[in-house]
Amino acid sequence: MGLNVTQKIIQSHLVDGQMLPGSPISIRIDQTLTQDATGTMAYLQFEALGLDRVKTDLSVSYVDHNMLQAGFENADDHRFLQSIAARYGIYFSRPGNGICHQVHLERFSKPGGTLLGSDSHTPTSGGAGMLAIGAGGLDIALAMGGMPFNMNMPQVVGVKLTGNLQPFVSAKDIILEVLRRKTVKGGVGKVFEYFGPGIRSLTAPARSTITNMGAELGATTSVFPSDDITLAYLKAQGREADWRELLPDADASYDEVLEIDLDQLEPLIACPHSPDNVKTVREVAGTPVAQVAIGSCTNSSYTDLMTVAGMMRGRSVAPGVSLGVSPGSRQVMEMIIRDGGMLDIVGSGSRLLESACGPCIGMGFAPPTGGVSIRSFNRNFQGRSGTRDGQVYLASPETCAAAALTGVITDPRDLGIEVPGVQSPEQYVVDDRMIVVPPAPEEAARVEVVRGPNIAKLPQGQPAPDVLAGHNLLKVGDNITTDHIMPAGAKVLPLRSNLPAISQFVFSMVDETFPIRAKELGGGFIVGGHNYGQGSSREHAALAPMYLGVRAVLVKSFARIHLANLINFGILPITFVDEADYDQLEQGDQLAVDIRGLSVGGQLLVVNQTRNVEIRVLPQIGSQRDLELIRSGGALAWASQRMSA
Amino acid sequence: MGLNVTQKIIQSHLVDGQMLPGSPISIRIDQTLTQDATGTMAYLQFEALGLDRVKTDLSVSYVDHNMLQAGFENADDHRFLQSIAARYGIYFSRPGNGICHQVHLERFSKPGGTLLGSDSHTPTSGGAGMLAIGAGGLDIALAMGGMPFNMNMPQVVGVKLTGNLQPFVSAKDIILEVLRRKTVKGGVGKVFEYFGPGIRSLTAPARSTITNMGAELGATTSVFPSDDITLAYLKAQGREADWRELLPDADASYDEVLEIDLDQLEPLIACPHSPDNVKTVREVAGTPVAQVAIGSCTNSSYTDLMTVAGMMRGRSVAPGVSLGVSPGSRQVMEMIIRDGGMLDIVGSGSRLLESACGPCIGMGFAPPTGGVSIRSFNRNFQGRSGTRDGQVYLASPETCAAAALTGVITDPRDLGIEVPGVQSPEQYVVDDRMIVVPPAPEEAARVEVVRGPNIAKLPQGQPAPDVLAGHNLLKVGDNITTDHIMPAGAKVLPLRSNLPAISQFVFSMVDETFPIRAKELGGGFIVGGHNYGQGSSREHAALAPMYLGVRAVLVKSFARIHLANLINFGILPITFVDEADYDQLEQGDQLAVDIRGLSVGGQLLVVNQTRNVEIRVLPQIGSQRDLELIRSGGALAWASQRMSA
Repeated sequence: MGLNVTQKIIQSHLVDGQMLPGSPISIRIDQTLTQDATGTMAYLQFEALGLDRVKTDLSVSYVDHNMLQAGFENADDHRFLQSIAARYGIYFSRPGNGICHQVHLERFSKPGGTLLGSDSHTPTSGGAGMLAIGAGGLDIALAMGGMPFNMNMPQVVGVKLTGNLQPFVSAKDIILEVLRRKTVKGGVGKVFEYFGPGIRSLTAPARSTITNMGAELGATTSVFPSDDITLAYLKAQGREADWRELLPDADASYDEVLEIDLDQLEPLIACPHSPDNVKTVREVAGTPVAQVAIGSCTNSSYTDLMTVAGMMRGRSVAPGVSLGVSPGSRQVMEMIIRDGGMLDIVGSGSRLLESACGPCIGMGFAPPTGGVSIRSFNRNFQGRSGTRDGQVYLASPETCAAAALTGVITDPRDLGIEVPGVQSPEQYVVDDRMIVVPPAPEEAARVEVVRGPNIAKLPQGQPAPDVLAGHNLLKVGDNITTDHIMPAGAKVLPLRSNLPAISQFVFSMVDETFPIRAKELGGGFIVGGHNYGQGSSREHAALAPMYLGVRAVLVKSFARIHLANLINFGILPITFVDEADYDQLEQGDQLAVDIRGLSVGGQLLVVNQTRNVEIRVLPQIGSQRDLELIRSGGALAWASQRMSA
Repeated sequence: MGLNVTQKIIQSHLVDGQMLPGSPISIRIDQTLTQDATGTMAYLQFEALGLDRVKTDLSVSYVDHNMLQAGFENADDHRFLQSIAARYGIYFSRPGNGICHQVHLERFSKPGGTLLGSDSHTPTSGGAGMLAIGAGGLDIALAMGGMPFNMNMPQVVGVKLTGNLQPFVSAKDIILEVLRRKTVKGGVGKVFEYFGPGIRSLTAPARSTITNMGAELGATTSVFPSDDITLAYLKAQGREADWRELLPDADASYDEVLEIDLDQLEPLIACPHSPDNVKTVREVAGTPVAQVAIGSCTNSSYTDLMTVAGMMRGRSVAPGVSLGVSPGSRQVMEMIIRDGGMLDIVGSGSRLLESACGPCIGMGFAPPTGGVSIRSFNRNFQGRSGTRDGQVYLASPETCAAAALTGVITDPRDLGIEVPGVQSPEQYVVDDRMIVVPPAPEEAARVEVVRGPNIAKLPQGQPAPDVLAGHNLLKVGDNITTDHIMPAGAKVLPLRSNLPAISQFVFSMVDETFPIRAKELGGGFIVGGHNYGQGSSREHAALAPMYLGVRAVLVKSFARIHLANLINFGILPITFVDEADYDQLEQGDQLAVDIRGLSVGGQLLVVNQTRNVEIRVLPQIGSQRDLELIRSGGALAWASQRMSA
């Protein structure tokens, strides 16, 4: 039987396992990327592996998250990242060169290849026919060390696009439509693969808008075929040689098919506070807007910004609206300056923000109290903007520009203006001077890694003792997110390289005394309800609790990525056999669990010594590898042993 | 006898007093400006006066300080400022329109007029022949209410410029030379008036670089004549009608004359951590540089940035250097985009920062730990950059660009490249769409002022008791800056509208326990050395200590604006009769001063009850008005009484 694009890439990279949906597989990773907020830790982890140079075809370290630089911390991070990249053979994209996903698409994406990135929007390069997956920093470190990436073979959802996008309707509206239908949980364990005649109307950057925001489905990744449109893009980037054709076989099949008629699609908008809370723009038209932000890894390509420029040309931002535009890369910035778009944007009264993630991750440009902010971004979780009661909507650049012009949410078709009709460049400005190429091995070995005081020493996981014992440090309810466990934002995100510092914020949204109590009591357990650890992939939500001495997390159920992160850092994830036992555990109780009998699928007993109760539990150990990770004290210790062996 | 320019402007605006140096005078204020960090408080104070509309010819409210927006606070401030401007007849320059001083010079400066601004670099408009003075927000509020500004008649220092600036030597080097000779204390009670044939080689923006940074001398202000060069500038701004000739009389005299031969001047640089720690660039050449920042109200004009662009064209920022450029205004940004300079700057690898104060006030782009940062700015006080041990140097844009290219401090003459030779524009791009004109009175009366939770209630000063008593809360040395007293930067500046919050940071650079101790001890005294309160105009350096219970400040000498601010907020400023008595006061001593005999020019006794010593002191009460302010508990209480009477 024929293969689809996803299956072809996996097959060509399969190291271990069988391509049966849900079955564990290991795949070879060609390229890795990191950004600075996850990268400092990932490189410390790679360093701990004791290797001399990365073993991937290509590894790139980007700086795009912590660029406000309110103190020495992040300038120190940047110097650390630049020097450790040189030391280990990693390309370094300097601050100001752009957002990792946009730059990677432009300069490094390779049809048919695999990319693992320590950022959940790594699937962006799927727009150029790459299998691009987001993961925790430790997984990136291991991949740089040449180890395969482990996951379950995904189901492949075929998204068939027919028809043609109508004026003022664009790629963002397609992914919003997918989110509307499938919700933020609809992609778990799945790859979304786009096909059908409609994909021919989408340029590579437009396709990347879709694969980027596919992350909001909870999907493993999203991917487009590599065709002559991909070729045209790579050629315009001076990278024709990186192209290869990659199409689904004529008799390829999908585990599920979703069809979208582009002729019928209209401008959509995700309302507060979830990317799947999608309505038509006309349904919410007229809502007064305080702020508009255009940019982010989702929608900051040349075409996106030239379209916005065309709409703003000779017009003014509405008096009550603050408009901020951040170009996705230095390439985009140079080209929109050259082609007059920047003058139109600045001329209209827009603020020009740095070429970085910026407001998308709450790094500046926070909206006013209760203010409505329309953004061309990919996430609108409550508080992520930096303003707790900010009302963030997600829409296309066209819909954003319309709101900036009118001061209210507006369907761009109702503006009564011409579609700018921007053409894709036949030749992009290629200037890689801000991407530092690593030196040859002999010279690299002499590079001194610069460590400012913000680069703390990497904590070492310890082999698990026979009995895990300690207090129940915290009892929480259902749906605890990684934002509850380890908050982000402009105040905490800059501390990502400094575990002792950032650990002071663990559970600060829930109980500010947690870090002090955990330290005083010498660590212990966390007890929770259903869907524990939902949300982002940040490994700091496992790493920081590990640092505070958390040994096991006992809950009703786990979110998938956080479960993997707990195992990666040697924290035992456990669920109740009988959920009613949740009531037998109070905060402060002294608990112990003998793990000598730990096995794949086996049960154990948690003893509540305070209440003299035994509770039957199911450790979430899915494989022999998981078992070894827990016994070793985490993936880093485990991998170090394997590499030295 | 003939008059100089300073005397002519004062004479034409004199409301009260005699033009004898050192004698109290009151002058009429034609224009006011505020920026957002001082403006929120100034407008709350104006509002408290109970008037319906400003009484000045022109008042402008700018937003340029708090533009990082890490939380809701500053977006709230911006909305408050925009709405209260409309309410009271004030022009509002929107965020992104540029730095107050640059925009004011471009669009509003008026030769022969008076400008009072709640920012110490207000003298920038002195480059266009205006008497432009920095003051606390409360003074601006009173001036908007039509009250004259009170000061002592300054001495006028004539700075005679002869010869011509040599290649790669520019206006910044002139003011650095003045600072080298006169120090940061050398300008107290003085106006620096420039004259002589050398001024003919300086455009209005170049002159403004000099008057801007004259603030670092501690001067009342600095001023240039208004001549045909001024006319050419105003004409290019489409403001020929605002010009009038204003030259010193042929027989004008100066209280002191300083002569600088421009032919002999070479590139200079102020070394850490004071603007008067000036050396030639060649003396410190070769010092490795981590960061370069070009912009600020001192050096971010069209000519400055096009010169930098010309130097960077086709070249690259050195691999170890992070270069950030912030254009001074939207006009500058549009023009350097149009004329190709932006492409050269971004192309070289520079980061493009917002058109705002930014790194100059520690709002982002902090250098790495111990890193050398060369900046075209005006202040390099320790820690102001956001990095406590950052090594900040101040130099011309040319010297900054040279360091960015080579990675070490470099005299631009030693680069071996051509001088770009930028011409002043014959016509600037005039587009005032981002300056909101206030509505007519009837409509203004209906404007609702928008107050977010960051706009705290204005604190009310209390009438002074007969005896001021308390502990000596803190003893400090010479040259304490307002940055020591009330730090700015990305962590503190956003709190300017919220006094209880910001007061927690008073003296945090010097002694982090100060706010707690002051509160616990129920307030008291501060003891210091010479030039106490130098630096910015921030009235929070008086307001926050007042909030913490500080009753009097006893030092060897004061900086002008801070002295006025202390009186404005009812804190008694006192100097020693015998400076040796400084040694009779230790931190923690219990002090008391009976102020029933307080009078203009009279002495008092401070009793050190701990050591049983009496110290003869001179309260800095220059006028009957000062006396009334102290007795009333500050200017706001005093003015409210007068306005309602």
